[in-house]
Amino acid sequence: MEALAEVLPEEEENHKLVIFAWSGDLDKVWPTLILATTASAMAWEVTVFFTFWGLTPLVKNDVRITGENWMQKMMSVMNRGGTEHLKLSKMNFAGAGPAMMKRLAREHKVASPQELLEMAREMGVRLVPCQMTMDLMGLRREDLVEGLGAPAGATSALLEAEGATTLFI
Amino acid sequence: MEALAEVLPEEEENHKLVIFAWSGDLDKVWPTLILATTASAMAWEVTVFFTFWGLTPLVKNDVRITGENWMQKMMSVMNRGGTEHLKLSKMNFAGAGPAMMKRLAREHKVASPQELLEMAREMGVRLVPCQMTMDLMGLRREDLVEGLGAPAGATSALLEAEGATTLFI
Amino acid sequence: MEALAEVLPEEEENHKLVIFAWSGDLDKVWPTLILATTASAMAWEVTVFFTFWGLTPLVKNDVRITGENWMQKMMSVMNRGGTEHLKLSKMNFAGAGPAMMKRLAREHKVASPQELLEMAREMGVRLVPCQMTMDLMGLRREDLVEGLGAPAGATSALLEAEGATTLFI
Repeated sequence: MEALAEVLPEEEENHKLVIFAWSGDLDKVWPTLILATTASAMAWEVTVFFTFWGLTPLVKNDVRITGENWMQKMMSVMNRGGTEHLKLSKMNFAGAGPAMMKRLAREHKVASPQELLEMAREMGVRLVPCQMTMDLMGLRREDLVEGLGAPAGATSALLEAEGATTLFI
Repeated sequence: MEALAEVLPEEEENHKLVIFAWSGDLDKVWPTLILATTASAMAWEVTVFFTFWGLTPLVKNDVRITGENWMQKMMSVMNRGGTEHLKLSKMNFAGAGPAMMKRLAREHKVASPQELLEMAREMGVRLVPCQMTMDLMGLRREDLVEGLGAPAGATSALLEAEGATTLFI
Repeated sequence: MEALAEVLPEEEENHKLVIFAWSGDLDKVWPTLILATTASAMAWEVTVFFTFWGLTPLVKNDVRITGENWMQKMMSVMNRGGTEHLKLSKMNFAGAGPAMMKRLAREHKVASPQELLEMAREMGVRLVPCQMTMDLMGLRREDLVEGLGAPAGATSALLEAEGATTLFI
């Protein structure tokens, strides 16, 4: 029966979590990073594939305008990147909502997106930016925070997802 | 060959559905509860983990203001809980959209969120509120409807999700 | 050891991707179709189950008003169907956002939703409209593009999802 283990699919042994992080909203970045760090603490292998608006929190907080042409620049102004500038998907109230939410989080000892992002990196969560989104939005590698995996595409993300617990957030 | 069954992974035998119900919008609560009750009718084991805005439909319909401090109270006023007060994520039109949608649903014999929630409970779907969200929003156990599972966190949710069909809605 | 292959669950051999395409927003239709066609190119079996707003891109571009009663007609006017009329979930700016996004996509050789939809069809991706949504919105088979699978319900979708990589988008 020992030989059997070899033919059983690998994913039954190493649990994996793959998150397609599509949203850049504060209220979705939070569950993405909480689930990623929690799964990592449970010794799961975790990959977060940041795509579309999901790249927003990966932009450095002190980078103001990104992009190579006026359209990309304009979009970066309307949708400033960085963990400190995330908005709520509802009840944003020009920033009052996120401020209240962050204060409530602090009072209840819930880590901030910035802290969770650093924690994820230190725990070995693979944080992978989507190459196509970077091209579309004109984001360069140096606009994004340190410690990310090499930019990748849908094929790599799907290969990771095979046999894993997958969530599109 | 009979011994083989024992080593095959358990999830091939008991199918499970785990939904991370993040949204409190009418148009997302509907698919969450339709998928949960449908899977339950197919004899799948179903757990719905209600987190963030997802807790909104679990608040009792007659509870008006929830929370312990002014921020939480204000949020509950802006985002009233209960299955009867859910809004559409788009085309809400100050409540006209949800009213039309509910009327169309009635005409086509689609159960309401309230009916689906009761059905889910009776069918044995595990309805689990997220402890962290309850803390953040100042929701007490008595603000929520009866028949829920014990509040839990991300670790329990992920343990359930292992080997299950998982959806983040 | 050869006999073993026969008893191993089928899903370990044919990888499947099942997407619950709930959203009709341009920025979600894009990842849905990119993931579907990419997985298909990887020889995965792919089913996209279009439900709720997700049916929007399946409506023919030249169909103006759909529905059988005034409520359904009004909703189709407010939320015009067809791949050419999709809106962004944020930064829509009365159509300026989608126009910019599509131009950026063209410049970076990213296929349009219309092209991706046709590609998906030709590659054999199963595109399944949700029967209940069609009833609710009064959409008839002839309002929708050619080449779709037979309309189906939650049960069929869940049966497909069993053992597959599943995403709710």
